[in-house]
Amino acid sequence: MSHGKQFTLYTHKGGPNGWKVAFVLEELGLTYHSIYLDFAKGEQKGPEHVKLNPNGRTPTIVDHKNGDFAVWESCAIIVYLVGTYDKQNKISVSDPKERITQLQWLFFQASGQGPYFGQAYWFKAYHPEKVPSAIERYQKETIRVLGVLESVLSKQEWLVGGKFTVADVSFVPWDISAFDALLVDYPGFSLEKDFPAVKAWHEKVISRPAVAAVLAIKASIN
Amino acid sequence: MSHGKQFTLYTHKGGPNGWKVAFVLEELGLTYHSIYLDFAKGEQKGPEHVKLNPNGRTPTIVDHKNGDFAVWESCAIIVYLVGTYDKQNKISVSDPKERITQLQWLFFQASGQGPYFGQAYWFKAYHPEKVPSAIERYQKETIRVLGVLESVLSKQEWLVGGKFTVADVSFVPWDISAFDALLVDYPGFSLEKDFPAVKAWHEKVISRPAVAAVLAIKASIN
Repeated sequence: MSHGKQFTLYTHKGGPNGWKVAFVLEELGLTYHSIYLDFAKGEQKGPEHVKLNPNGRTPTIVDHKNGDFAVWESCAIIVYLVGTYDKQNKISVSDPKERITQLQWLFFQASGQGPYFGQAYWFKAYHPEKVPSAIERYQKETIRVLGVLESVLSKQEWLVGGKFTVADVSFVPWDISAFDALLVDYPGFSLEKDFPAVKAWHEKVISRPAVAAVLAIKASIN
Repeated sequence: MSHGKQFTLYTHKGGPNGWKVAFVLEELGLTYHSIYLDFAKGEQKGPEHVKLNPNGRTPTIVDHKNGDFAVWESCAIIVYLVGTYDKQNKISVSDPKERITQLQWLFFQASGQGPYFGQAYWFKAYHPEKVPSAIERYQKETIRVLGVLESVLSKQEWLVGGKFTVADVSFVPWDISAFDALLVDYPGFSLEKDFPAVKAWHEKVISRPAVAAVLAIKASIN
Protein backbone atom coordinates (compact mmCIF):
# COMPACT_ATOMS: atom_id res chain seq x y z
CA MET A 1 0.00 0.00 0.00
CA SER A 2 2.21 2.76 -1.31
CA HIS A 3 -0.47 4.90 -2.91
CA GLY A 4 -1.09 6.97 0.23
CA LYS A 5 -4.87 6.87 -0.05
CA GLN A 6 -7.07 5.65 2.80
CA PHE A 7 -8.72 2.88 0.80
CA THR A 8 -7.79 0.43 -1.88
CA LEU A 9 -10.85 -0.35 -4.01
CA TYR A 10 -10.62 -3.54 -6.08
CA THR A 11 -13.13 -2.96 -8.82
CA HIS A 12 -13.89 -3.31 -12.51
CA LYS A 13 -14.22 -0.71 -15.26
CA GLY A 14 -17.53 -1.98 -16.57
CA GLY A 15 -19.27 -3.85 -13.76
CA PRO A 16 -21.93 -1.91 -11.85
CA ASN A 17 -21.17 -2.75 -8.24
CA GLY A 18 -17.79 -1.10 -7.80
CA TRP A 19 -19.22 2.20 -8.99
CA LYS A 20 -21.79 2.13 -6.19
CA VAL A 21 -18.94 2.09 -3.70
CA ALA A 22 -17.06 4.84 -5.58
CA PHE A 23 -20.16 7.07 -5.38
CA VAL A 24 -20.22 6.70 -1.61
CA LEU A 25 -16.46 7.22 -1.15
CA GLU A 26 -16.68 10.37 -3.28
CA GLU A 27 -19.77 11.66 -1.46
CA LEU A 28 -17.93 11.28 1.85
CA GLY A 29 -14.72 12.87 0.56
CA LEU A 30 -12.71 9.74 1.38
CA THR A 31 -9.52 9.06 -0.55
CA TYR A 32 -9.18 5.82 -2.48
CA HIS A 33 -7.03 4.14 -5.06
CA SER A 34 -8.96 2.03 -7.58
CA ILE A 35 -7.42 -1.17 -8.91
CA TYR A 36 -9.36 -2.21 -11.98
CA LEU A 37 -9.12 -5.99 -12.15
CA ASP A 38 -8.89 -7.55 -15.59
CA PHE A 39 -11.56 -10.24 -15.77
CA ALA A 40 -10.17 -11.51 -19.09
CA LYS A 41 -7.02 -12.44 -17.18
CA GLY A 42 -9.04 -13.82 -14.25
CA GLU A 43 -7.47 -11.34 -11.84
CA GLN A 44 -10.62 -11.29 -9.68
CA LYS A 45 -10.01 -15.01 -9.01
CA GLY A 46 -6.27 -14.54 -8.49
CA PRO A 47 -4.58 -15.23 -5.15
CA GLU A 48 -4.06 -11.56 -4.18
CA HIS A 49 -7.77 -10.77 -4.51
CA VAL A 50 -9.21 -14.07 -3.25
CA LYS A 51 -7.14 -13.74 -0.09
CA LEU A 52 -9.23 -10.63 0.64
CA ASN A 53 -12.47 -11.83 -0.92
CA PRO A 54 -13.14 -15.57 -1.19
CA ASN A 55 -16.06 -14.87 -3.53
CA GLY A 56 -13.65 -13.68 -6.23
CA ARG A 57 -15.95 -10.96 -7.50
CA THR A 58 -15.71 -7.17 -7.32
CA PRO A 59 -15.80 -4.86 -5.43
CA THR A 60 -13.61 -5.32 -2.38
CA ILE A 61 -12.24 -2.52 -0.22
CA VAL A 62 -9.34 -2.41 2.18
CA ASP A 63 -9.40 0.36 4.79
CA HIS A 64 -5.77 1.18 5.54
CA LYS A 65 -6.74 3.44 8.44
CA ASN A 66 -8.62 0.64 10.19
CA GLY A 67 -6.09 -2.16 10.39
CA ASP A 68 -6.34 -2.97 6.66
CA PHE A 69 -9.89 -4.16 7.28
CA ALA A 70 -11.20 -5.85 4.12
CA VAL A 71 -14.89 -5.90 3.18
CA TRP A 72 -16.62 -7.30 0.11
CA GLU A 73 -20.25 -7.25 -1.09
CA SER A 74 -20.89 -3.73 -2.31
CA CYS A 75 -23.83 -2.96 -0.05
CA ALA A 76 -22.02 -4.26 3.04
CA ILE A 77 -19.14 -1.95 2.08
CA ILE A 78 -21.59 0.94 1.81
CA VAL A 79 -23.04 0.21 5.26
CA TYR A 80 -19.50 0.04 6.66
CA LEU A 81 -18.55 3.37 5.09
CA VAL A 82 -21.55 5.33 6.32
CA GLY A 83 -21.55 3.63 9.71
CA THR A 84 -17.90 4.50 10.24
CA TYR A 85 -17.35 7.72 8.29
CA ASP A 86 -20.74 9.45 8.02
CA LYS A 87 -21.28 10.35 11.65
CA GLN A 88 -22.94 13.60 10.51
CA ASN A 89 -25.42 11.59 8.41
CA LYS A 90 -24.73 13.58 5.27
CA ILE A 91 -25.85 10.67 3.07
CA SER A 92 -27.43 8.30 5.57
CA VAL A 93 -30.11 8.29 8.25
CA SER A 94 -29.63 8.12 12.01
CA ASP A 95 -33.01 7.10 13.41
CA PRO A 96 -32.93 3.37 14.30
CA LYS A 97 -36.08 2.48 12.35
CA GLU A 98 -34.99 4.53 9.36
CA ARG A 99 -31.62 2.79 9.40
CA ILE A 100 -33.43 -0.52 9.01
CA THR A 101 -35.54 0.89 6.19
CA GLN A 102 -32.34 2.16 4.53
CA LEU A 103 -30.88 -1.34 4.89
CA GLN A 104 -34.09 -2.87 3.53
CA TRP A 105 -33.73 -0.84 0.33
CA LEU A 106 -30.05 -1.81 0.06
CA PHE A 107 -31.08 -5.47 0.27
CA PHE A 108 -33.76 -4.88 -2.34
CA GLN A 109 -31.12 -3.34 -4.60
CA ALA A 110 -28.65 -6.16 -3.97
CA SER A 111 -31.09 -9.06 -4.28
CA GLY A 112 -34.02 -7.71 -6.32
CA GLN A 113 -32.48 -5.26 -8.75
CA GLY A 114 -28.86 -6.31 -9.33
CA PRO A 115 -29.18 -10.05 -10.00
CA TYR A 116 -32.28 -9.75 -12.19
CA PHE A 117 -31.15 -6.76 -14.25
CA GLY A 118 -27.86 -8.66 -14.48
CA GLN A 119 -29.56 -11.75 -15.90
CA ALA A 120 -31.30 -9.60 -18.52
CA TYR A 121 -27.89 -8.31 -19.47
CA TRP A 122 -26.40 -11.81 -19.53
CA PHE A 123 -29.07 -13.28 -21.79
CA LYS A 124 -28.98 -10.27 -24.13
CA ALA A 125 -25.19 -10.01 -24.42
CA TYR A 126 -23.34 -13.13 -23.32
CA HIS A 127 -25.41 -16.33 -23.26
CA PRO A 128 -24.06 -18.84 -25.81
CA GLU A 129 -27.47 -19.29 -27.45
CA LYS A 130 -30.34 -16.91 -28.07
CA VAL A 131 -33.18 -17.61 -25.61
CA PRO A 132 -35.97 -15.08 -26.18
CA SER A 133 -38.08 -16.49 -23.33
CA ALA A 134 -35.24 -15.90 -20.88
CA ILE A 135 -34.65 -12.35 -22.13
CA GLU A 136 -38.37 -11.70 -21.78
CA ARG A 137 -38.41 -13.13 -18.25
CA TYR A 138 -35.69 -10.77 -17.06
CA GLN A 139 -36.91 -7.74 -18.98
CA LYS A 140 -40.31 -8.24 -17.34
CA GLU A 141 -38.69 -8.48 -13.93
CA THR A 142 -36.73 -5.29 -14.67
CA ILE A 143 -40.02 -3.56 -15.46
CA ARG A 144 -41.56 -4.99 -12.27
CA VAL A 145 -38.72 -3.67 -10.11
CA LEU A 146 -39.03 -0.22 -11.70
CA GLY A 147 -42.73 -0.43 -10.91
CA VAL A 148 -42.01 -1.10 -7.23
CA LEU A 149 -39.75 1.97 -7.13
CA GLU A 150 -42.36 4.05 -8.99
CA SER A 151 -45.08 3.04 -6.51
CA VAL A 152 -42.99 4.45 -3.69
CA LEU A 153 -41.35 7.45 -5.40
CA SER A 154 -44.64 8.72 -6.78
CA LYS A 155 -45.62 9.35 -3.14
CA GLN A 156 -42.30 10.51 -1.66
CA GLU A 157 -39.17 12.19 -3.02
CA TRP A 158 -36.56 9.78 -1.58
CA LEU A 159 -36.57 6.14 -0.50
CA VAL A 160 -36.01 6.82 3.19
CA GLY A 161 -35.82 9.65 5.69
CA GLY A 162 -37.08 12.42 3.40
CA LYS A 163 -33.56 13.00 2.08
CA PHE A 164 -30.98 11.60 -0.32
CA THR A 165 -29.21 8.57 1.13
CA VAL A 166 -27.03 5.67 0.05
CA ALA A 167 -30.23 3.72 -0.58
CA ASP A 168 -31.04 6.02 -3.50
CA VAL A 169 -27.59 6.02 -5.05
CA SER A 170 -27.24 2.26 -4.87
CA PHE A 171 -29.77 1.84 -7.71
CA VAL A 172 -27.93 4.13 -10.16
CA PRO A 173 -25.57 1.78 -12.06
CA TRP A 174 -28.14 -0.88 -12.90
CA ASP A 175 -30.83 1.73 -13.64
CA ILE A 176 -28.50 3.31 -16.19
CA SER A 177 -28.08 -0.12 -17.81
CA ALA A 178 -31.83 -0.66 -17.82
CA PHE A 179 -32.60 2.70 -19.41
CA ASP A 180 -29.75 2.67 -21.93
CA ALA A 181 -29.57 -1.00 -22.88
CA LEU A 182 -31.77 -3.64 -21.26
CA LEU A 183 -35.16 -2.14 -22.07
CA VAL A 184 -34.53 -0.22 -25.29
CA ASP A 185 -36.09 -3.02 -27.36
CA TYR A 186 -38.85 -3.85 -24.87
CA PRO A 187 -42.21 -3.33 -26.57
CA GLY A 188 -43.79 -0.04 -25.55
CA PHE A 189 -41.24 0.81 -22.85
CA SER A 190 -41.30 4.50 -21.97
CA LEU A 191 -39.46 5.71 -18.90
CA GLU A 192 -41.11 9.14 -19.18
CA LYS A 193 -44.63 7.81 -19.49
CA ASP A 194 -44.58 4.75 -17.24
CA PHE A 195 -42.01 5.66 -14.57
CA PRO A 196 -41.95 9.46 -14.30
CA ALA A 197 -41.11 9.49 -10.59
CA VAL A 198 -38.23 7.03 -11.10
CA LYS A 199 -36.93 9.19 -13.95
CA ALA A 200 -37.04 12.39 -11.87
CA TRP A 201 -35.39 10.66 -8.89
CA HIS A 202 -32.66 9.10 -11.02
CA GLU A 203 -31.88 12.46 -12.65
CA LYS A 204 -31.63 14.17 -9.27
CA VAL A 205 -29.24 11.50 -8.00
CA ILE A 206 -26.93 11.49 -11.03
CA SER A 207 -26.72 15.29 -11.01
CA ARG A 208 -25.20 15.35 -7.53
CA PRO A 209 -21.61 16.60 -7.92
CA ALA A 210 -19.99 13.53 -6.36
CA VAL A 211 -22.07 11.10 -8.40
CA ALA A 212 -21.51 13.06 -11.61
CA ALA A 213 -17.77 13.16 -10.94
CA VAL A 214 -17.62 9.37 -10.59
CA LEU A 215 -19.76 8.85 -13.69
CA ALA A 216 -17.33 11.12 -15.58
CA ILE A 217 -14.42 8.92 -14.48
CA LYS A 218 -16.38 5.85 -15.59
CA ALA A 219 -17.09 7.40 -19.00
CA SER A 220 -13.45 8.40 -19.43
CA ILE A 221 -12.12 4.85 -18.97
CA ASN A 222 -14.77 2.82 -20.78
CA MET B 1 -53.80 -7.87 15.37
CA SER B 2 -55.82 -10.09 17.67
CA HIS B 3 -53.45 -13.05 17.79
CA GLY B 4 -51.57 -11.76 20.83
CA LYS B 5 -48.11 -12.54 19.46
CA GLN B 6 -45.39 -9.92 19.19
CA PHE B 7 -44.92 -10.30 15.44
CA THR B 8 -47.02 -10.97 12.42
CA LEU B 9 -44.94 -12.77 9.78
CA TYR B 10 -46.31 -12.67 6.25
CA THR B 11 -44.70 -15.63 4.59
CA HIS B 12 -45.19 -18.58 2.27
CA LYS B 13 -45.29 -22.31 2.93
CA GLY B 14 -42.80 -23.24 0.23
CA GLY B 15 -40.63 -20.19 -0.44
CA PRO B 16 -37.22 -20.17 1.28
CA ASN B 17 -36.97 -16.63 2.60
CA GLY B 18 -39.74 -16.61 5.18
CA TRP B 19 -38.21 -19.66 6.85
CA LYS B 20 -34.94 -17.77 7.39
CA VAL B 21 -36.87 -15.24 9.46
CA ALA B 22 -38.73 -17.97 11.34
CA PHE B 23 -35.40 -19.57 12.31
CA VAL B 24 -34.25 -16.30 13.86
CA LEU B 25 -37.54 -15.59 15.65
CA GLU B 26 -37.46 -19.11 17.10
CA GLU B 27 -33.79 -18.86 18.10
CA LEU B 28 -34.56 -15.64 19.99
CA GLY B 29 -37.70 -17.02 21.62
CA LEU B 30 -39.85 -14.28 20.09
CA THR B 31 -43.56 -14.95 19.57
CA TYR B 32 -45.01 -14.67 16.09
CA HIS B 33 -48.08 -15.48 14.08
CA SER B 34 -47.40 -16.69 10.54
CA ILE B 35 -49.79 -15.74 7.76
CA TYR B 36 -49.08 -18.01 4.81
CA LEU B 37 -50.00 -16.00 1.72
CA ASP B 38 -51.55 -17.90 -1.18
CA PHE B 39 -49.53 -17.01 -4.27
CA ALA B 40 -52.07 -18.77 -6.51
CA LYS B 41 -54.59 -16.16 -5.36
CA GLY B 42 -52.01 -13.36 -5.67
CA GLU B 43 -52.33 -12.50 -1.98
CA GLN B 44 -48.71 -11.30 -1.85
CA LYS B 45 -49.70 -8.60 -4.37
CA GLY B 46 -52.97 -7.80 -2.60
CA PRO B 47 -53.65 -4.42 -0.98
CA GLU B 48 -53.22 -5.57 2.64
CA HIS B 49 -49.72 -6.90 2.00
CA VAL B 50 -48.52 -4.28 -0.52
CA LYS B 51 -49.44 -1.54 1.94
CA LEU B 52 -46.74 -3.02 4.20
CA ASN B 53 -44.40 -4.19 1.45
CA PRO B 54 -44.48 -2.43 -1.93
CA ASN B 55 -42.34 -5.23 -3.41
CA GLY B 56 -45.23 -7.66 -3.02
CA ARG B 57 -43.00 -10.60 -2.14
CA THR B 58 -42.53 -12.51 1.10
CA PRO B 59 -41.50 -12.27 3.90
CA THR B 60 -42.68 -9.17 5.69
CA ILE B 61 -42.85 -8.74 9.45
CA VAL B 62 -44.81 -6.33 11.61
CA ASP B 63 -43.48 -5.74 15.13
CA HIS B 64 -46.53 -4.99 17.27
CA LYS B 65 -44.35 -4.03 20.25
CA ASN B 66 -42.52 -1.37 18.25
CA GLY B 67 -45.30 0.76 16.84
CA ASP B 68 -46.33 -1.87 14.27
CA PHE B 69 -43.02 -1.31 12.52
CA ALA B 70 -43.03 -3.16 9.18
CA VAL B 71 -39.88 -4.51 7.55
CA TRP B 72 -39.43 -6.55 4.38
CA GLU B 73 -36.40 -8.16 2.73
CA SER B 74 -35.58 -11.22 4.80
CA CYS B 75 -32.00 -10.28 5.63
CA ALA B 76 -32.98 -6.73 6.64
CA ILE B 77 -35.57 -8.32 8.93
CA ILE B 78 -32.88 -10.56 10.42
CA VAL B 79 -30.59 -7.58 11.07
CA TYR B 80 -33.50 -5.75 12.70
CA LEU B 81 -34.32 -8.73 14.93
CA VAL B 82 -30.80 -9.31 16.21
CA GLY B 83 -30.06 -5.58 16.50
CA THR B 84 -33.18 -5.03 18.59
CA TYR B 85 -33.73 -8.32 20.42
CA ASP B 86 -30.35 -10.05 20.66
CA LYS B 87 -28.59 -7.68 23.02
CA GLN B 88 -26.83 -10.69 24.59
CA ASN B 89 -25.48 -11.70 21.16
CA LYS B 90 -26.76 -15.25 21.45
CA ILE B 91 -26.87 -15.63 17.65
CA SER B 92 -25.02 -12.53 16.47
CA VAL B 93 -21.69 -10.81 16.95
CA SER B 94 -21.02 -7.57 18.82
CA ASP B 95 -17.59 -6.42 17.63
CA PRO B 96 -18.02 -3.61 15.06
CA LYS B 97 -15.81 -5.25 12.42
CA GLU B 98 -17.40 -8.65 12.95
CA ARG B 99 -20.85 -7.07 12.58
CA ILE B 100 -19.81 -5.85 9.13
CA THR B 101 -18.46 -9.30 8.26
CA GLN B 102 -21.75 -10.82 9.45
CA LEU B 103 -23.61 -8.33 7.23
CA GLN B 104 -21.27 -9.14 4.32
CA TRP B 105 -22.27 -12.82 4.51
CA LEU B 106 -25.94 -11.88 4.72
CA PHE B 107 -25.52 -9.84 1.54
CA PHE B 108 -23.71 -12.76 -0.10
CA GLN B 109 -26.62 -15.01 0.85
CA ALA B 110 -29.22 -12.52 -0.39
CA SER B 111 -27.51 -11.57 -3.64
CA GLY B 112 -25.17 -14.46 -4.44
CA GLN B 113 -26.95 -17.56 -3.16
CA GLY B 114 -30.70 -16.84 -3.20
CA PRO B 115 -31.22 -15.36 -6.67
CA TYR B 116 -28.94 -17.84 -8.45
CA PHE B 117 -30.13 -20.99 -6.69
CA GLY B 118 -33.60 -19.56 -7.34
CA GLN B 119 -32.95 -19.29 -11.08
CA ALA B 120 -31.77 -22.91 -11.14
CA TYR B 121 -35.06 -23.83 -9.51
CA TRP B 122 -37.05 -21.68 -11.96
CA PHE B 123 -35.48 -23.17 -15.08
CA LYS B 124 -35.77 -26.71 -13.74
CA ALA B 125 -39.37 -26.47 -12.52
CA TYR B 126 -41.28 -23.53 -13.97
CA HIS B 127 -39.87 -22.06 -17.15
CA PRO B 128 -42.34 -22.51 -20.04
CA GLU B 129 -39.72 -24.16 -22.25
CA LYS B 130 -36.82 -26.47 -21.52
CA VAL B 131 -33.52 -24.56 -21.75
CA PRO B 132 -30.65 -26.89 -20.80
CA SER B 133 -28.06 -24.14 -21.22
CA ALA B 134 -29.87 -21.99 -18.65
CA ILE B 135 -30.21 -24.88 -16.20
CA GLU B 136 -26.51 -25.59 -16.63
CA ARG B 137 -25.62 -21.93 -16.07
CA TYR B 138 -27.42 -21.80 -12.74
CA GLN B 139 -26.35 -25.25 -11.57
CA LYS B 140 -22.74 -24.21 -12.21
CA GLU B 141 -23.26 -21.03 -10.24
CA THR B 142 -24.79 -23.06 -7.40
CA ILE B 143 -21.65 -25.23 -7.40
CA ARG B 144 -19.47 -22.11 -7.47
CA VAL B 145 -21.25 -20.59 -4.45
CA LEU B 146 -20.88 -23.85 -2.51
CA GLY B 147 -17.19 -23.71 -3.43
CA VAL B 148 -16.85 -20.22 -1.95
CA LEU B 149 -18.42 -21.46 1.29
CA GLU B 150 -16.22 -24.57 1.28
CA SER B 151 -13.07 -22.46 0.83
CA VAL B 152 -13.94 -20.58 4.03
CA LEU B 153 -15.50 -23.35 6.12
CA SER B 154 -12.62 -25.73 5.47
CA LYS B 155 -10.49 -23.28 7.47
CA GLN B 156 -12.93 -22.16 10.17
CA GLU B 157 -16.00 -23.67 11.84
CA TRP B 158 -18.40 -20.73 11.37
CA LEU B 159 -18.67 -17.83 8.93
CA VAL B 160 -17.95 -15.10 11.47
CA GLY B 161 -16.89 -14.60 15.06
CA GLY B 162 -15.96 -18.21 15.80
CA LYS B 163 -19.56 -19.04 16.70
CA PHE B 164 -22.95 -19.78 15.18
CA THR B 165 -24.67 -16.61 13.96
CA VAL B 166 -27.53 -15.52 11.75
CA ALA B 167 -25.05 -15.49 8.85
CA ASP B 168 -24.79 -19.28 9.05
CA VAL B 169 -28.51 -19.98 9.35
CA SER B 170 -29.41 -17.68 6.47
CA PHE B 171 -27.98 -20.18 3.97
CA VAL B 172 -30.06 -23.14 5.18
CA PRO B 173 -33.26 -22.99 3.07
CA TRP B 174 -31.55 -22.63 -0.30
CA ASP B 175 -28.82 -25.13 0.63
CA ILE B 176 -31.52 -27.69 1.38
CA SER B 177 -32.98 -27.04 -2.08
CA ALA B 178 -29.56 -27.38 -3.67
CA PHE B 179 -28.76 -30.66 -1.94
CA ASP B 180 -32.22 -32.23 -2.34
CA ALA B 181 -33.28 -30.95 -5.75
CA LEU B 182 -31.17 -28.53 -7.77
CA LEU B 183 -27.99 -30.59 -7.98
CA VAL B 184 -29.25 -34.17 -7.81
CA ASP B 185 -28.89 -34.56 -11.60
CA TYR B 186 -25.69 -32.53 -11.89
CA PRO B 187 -22.95 -34.77 -13.34
CA GLY B 188 -20.61 -36.00 -10.63
CA PHE B 189 -22.04 -33.87 -7.84
CA SER B 190 -21.10 -35.21 -4.42
CA LEU B 191 -21.69 -33.08 -1.35
CA GLU B 192 -19.65 -35.46 0.81
CA LYS B 193 -16.68 -35.57 -1.52
CA ASP B 194 -16.54 -32.04 -2.89
CA PHE B 195 -17.97 -29.96 -0.05
CA PRO B 196 -17.31 -31.83 3.21
CA ALA B 197 -16.96 -28.67 5.31
CA VAL B 198 -20.22 -27.25 3.94
CA LYS B 199 -21.95 -30.55 4.70
CA ALA B 200 -20.68 -30.65 8.29
CA TRP B 201 -21.59 -26.98 8.86
CA HIS B 202 -25.07 -27.40 7.39
CA GLU B 203 -25.74 -30.45 9.56
CA LYS B 204 -24.66 -28.61 12.69
CA VAL B 205 -26.94 -25.69 11.86
CA ILE B 206 -30.04 -27.75 11.08
CA SER B 207 -29.60 -29.81 14.24
CA ARG B 208 -29.95 -26.74 16.46
CA PRO B 209 -33.22 -27.16 18.40
CA ALA B 210 -34.76 -23.91 17.16
CA VAL B 211 -33.85 -24.59 13.53
CA ALA B 212 -35.02 -28.20 13.74
CA ALA B 213 -38.33 -27.07 15.29
CA VAL B 214 -38.98 -24.66 12.42
CA LEU B 215 -38.02 -27.26 9.82
CA ALA B 216 -40.49 -29.65 11.47
CA ILE B 217 -43.25 -27.05 11.11
CA LYS B 218 -42.26 -26.59 7.46
CA ALA B 219 -42.38 -30.34 6.83
CA SER B 220 -45.75 -30.63 8.54
CA ILE B 221 -47.47 -28.07 6.29
CA ASN B 222 -45.87 -28.88 2.95
